[in-house]
Amino acid sequence: MLKGYLMATLFYEPSTRTRLSFESAMKRLGGEVLTTENAREFSSAAKGETLEDTIRTVEGYSDIIVMRHFESGAAKQAAAVSSIPVINAGDGPGQHPTQALLDVYTIQRETGRLDGIKVGLVGDLANGRTVRSLAYLLAKYDGVKFYFVSPDVVKMKDDIKEYLTSKNIEWEESKDLMEVASKCDVIYQTRIQRERFGDKIELYNQARGKYIVDRKVVDVLQSHAVVLHPLPRLDEITTEVDVDPRAAYFRQAKNGLFIRMALLKLLLLGW
Amino acid sequence: MLKGYLMATLFYEPSTRTRLSFESAMKRLGGEVLTTENAREFSSAAKGETLEDTIRTVEGYSDIIVMRHFESGAAKQAAAVSSIPVINAGDGPGQHPTQALLDVYTIQRETGRLDGIKVGLVGDLANGRTVRSLAYLLAKYDGVKFYFVSPDVVKMKDDIKEYLTSKNIEWEESKDLMEVASKCDVIYQTRIQRERFGDKIELYNQARGKYIVDRKVVDVLQSHAVVLHPLPRLDEITTEVDVDPRAAYFRQAKNGLFIRMALLKLLLLGW
Amino acid sequence: MLKGYLMATLFYEPSTRTRLSFESAMKRLGGEVLTTENAREFSSAAKGETLEDTIRTVEGYSDIIVMRHFESGAAKQAAAVSSIPVINAGDGPGQHPTQALLDVYTIQRETGRLDGIKVGLVGDLANGRTVRSLAYLLAKYDGVKFYFVSPDVVKMKDDIKEYLTSKNIEWEESKDLMEVASKCDVIYQTRIQRERFGDKIELYNQARGKYIVDRKVVDVLQSHAVVLHPLPRLDEITTEVDVDPRAAYFRQAKNGLFIRMALLKLLLLGW
Repeated sequence: MLKGYLMATLFYEPSTRTRLSFESAMKRLGGEVLTTENAREFSSAAKGETLEDTIRTVEGYSDIIVMRHFESGAAKQAAAVSSIPVINAGDGPGQHPTQALLDVYTIQRETGRLDGIKVGLVGDLANGRTVRSLAYLLAKYDGVKFYFVSPDVVKMKDDIKEYLTSKNIEWEESKDLMEVASKCDVIYQTRIQRERFGDKIELYNQARGKYIVDRKVVDVLQSHAVVLHPLPRLDEITTEVDVDPRAAYFRQAKNGLFIRMALLKLLLLGW
Repeated sequence: MLKGYLMATLFYEPSTRTRLSFESAMKRLGGEVLTTENAREFSSAAKGETLEDTIRTVEGYSDIIVMRHFESGAAKQAAAVSSIPVINAGDGPGQHPTQALLDVYTIQRETGRLDGIKVGLVGDLANGRTVRSLAYLLAKYDGVKFYFVSPDVVKMKDDIKEYLTSKNIEWEESKDLMEVASKCDVIYQTRIQRERFGDKIELYNQARGKYIVDRKVVDVLQSHAVVLHPLPRLDEITTEVDVDPRAAYFRQAKNGLFIRMALLKLLLLGW
Repeated sequence: MLKGYLMATLFYEPSTRTRLSFESAMKRLGGEVLTTENAREFSSAAKGETLEDTIRTVEGYSDIIVMRHFESGAAKQAAAVSSIPVINAGDGPGQHPTQALLDVYTIQRETGRLDGIKVGLVGDLANGRTVRSLAYLLAKYDGVKFYFVSPDVVKMKDDIKEYLTSKNIEWEESKDLMEVASKCDVIYQTRIQRERFGDKIELYNQARGKYIVDRKVVDVLQSHAVVLHPLPRLDEITTEVDVDPRAAYFRQAKNGLFIRMALLKLLLLGW
């Protein structure tokens, strides 16, 4: 379907799932890929080239750009100068919109609905770009209610809270993961991201380990509920949970492939 | 056209344009690519393998090798032991012949001619392999005249000057960028390359910023003249210049794709 | 033959031959590749993801995984959780089974037989995963005899010796490379691997340079004998040997392509 099309992946931060699922998506559809695994050190960015100049060059060699960057707003900056589509594959602590698409697809597929669901967002809600993007996207559905469960140092930021309020979406903060787990349709756990704390290691250590999804948490889930996680995980979901049918995070990762296939088809061929 | 052919890219130095345009060229023609983005650290070179041994191995797995290396002469060294074509994609401060091909193509396409043109080479003429290769190649045309405008620490080397003289090609050195700009058909600006100065930071700082192509310089250009740059640029061309129709450097980067397609076709399929 | 199939290469250690020959094999057969050149630093492993979680993700995006890892046992660990084939492309000081396959193929092709051959294994026999795998594989043939020639600090480990003895395969240790060379059909030289010694540089320096295959050694070889090496080499085979027709190591490297083509075909399409 995409035979003859070329996708350039420009990754300035480490990635497994996002880069490989985009590249797999392109190749499964018959397209081809120009890979940059480590653009920060091994492209002209290392020589001081601006992102705008890099994009003005790469747009001459490919048909679509998939970019992960370490700075919030980088994808928007790139799209502003590009004559070909630029997909934001994560911009630092900013957004991760294609992750939100696959998350929403997974919730629909696993629980059968999106309107009226209760969603517990757990972990690093300040720096976690996936929960930020997911909150934005789920706000488009009716009657969704959010529970934010996070260490104080990484609480959900005001921009998202204000956005949800402006859309009449209910949300509340909670310190009680068990109680939230018992009433939600979706528990969306996230990793406390070491790489966003810089040298503030004590803050990181305080935050990590506070809210763990383990057997006890899963035992209070409703039978139709699911546990999601954008991955990678460290110990915030214990491996004993993996065998529970409600542990949907590897199916979620796999859905990334299908969503990105659809997105590439849409952007390159249209509806 | 190149279906069934495999190109190996061995890059021992960072690159954006050269690697991606070669890989794009190969894939646009239906061929395939084996990529090595960071051969210096992540191939057997890191274990101490000689370049000759690497080439003797890679020639068994591919049909053509595109190599960027940090040492002058490395491509010649590789070609000497290889039974398949080796393309020099930049060898340290040595040469960058495919850049010269795309530069000449761009000059022809933008200004309509090559014989008799006046070319101002500006910036790092000592370490800039692109200007060195361009001087060699343009010396094959009639009546070309060169102006060398560079900080003292990175002046054009004697080997090129002697070569031009031996070919009866006129050249002169100048300290006056405005005057050179006013009479040239091509202003070829280059980056002062931080990575060639090692720990001599004070020399680098002296050289950088001495000759900047800005609005004032562009204002004295003839209407048919063009500004070229091999990219990446830092601040040696100000971004205000980008919108001027005579700013041809992004078109030049794009031409790299076409030139490299032609070159791959020529080397793999012949005339 | 493999059109529509996707192979993921996950390399956590530097490689030239293994990665490029696997990728070449896949592409020569019409398949496609997802490359990870530096998974240690530039995948989610850098964020602390377990190997098991990485594999559970990547298996969703590809049809077969080729993995090199720095830890012994990593490939087995990966295969235990994977629903698609995992090929061990070297696991630290553990095993390198596809190298053994190409080594055995090379011996058969170069000398015409495998039963009854005398094989001198030389160099780093403690950490050299290629000699360990080769010893295991050759033990399946009748009447093979091994000579182990290595510095004391990197002698062949007991697990291999006991395995050979249990299979009634003769082996002996020797300090005399010349004598071993004069009676063997195969001299299999290996590199003393700097990267396995950590900070024990003095031990490394003692081991390196003790057994060199040079002109003098080659002069005592039988005319049908061959010198093999898994490569990369430093100075443990002098370059003067390269021109001798019995120096088979670059043909051996090339055979890696054919063996890996066969293996991919077998694992993806069956017999």
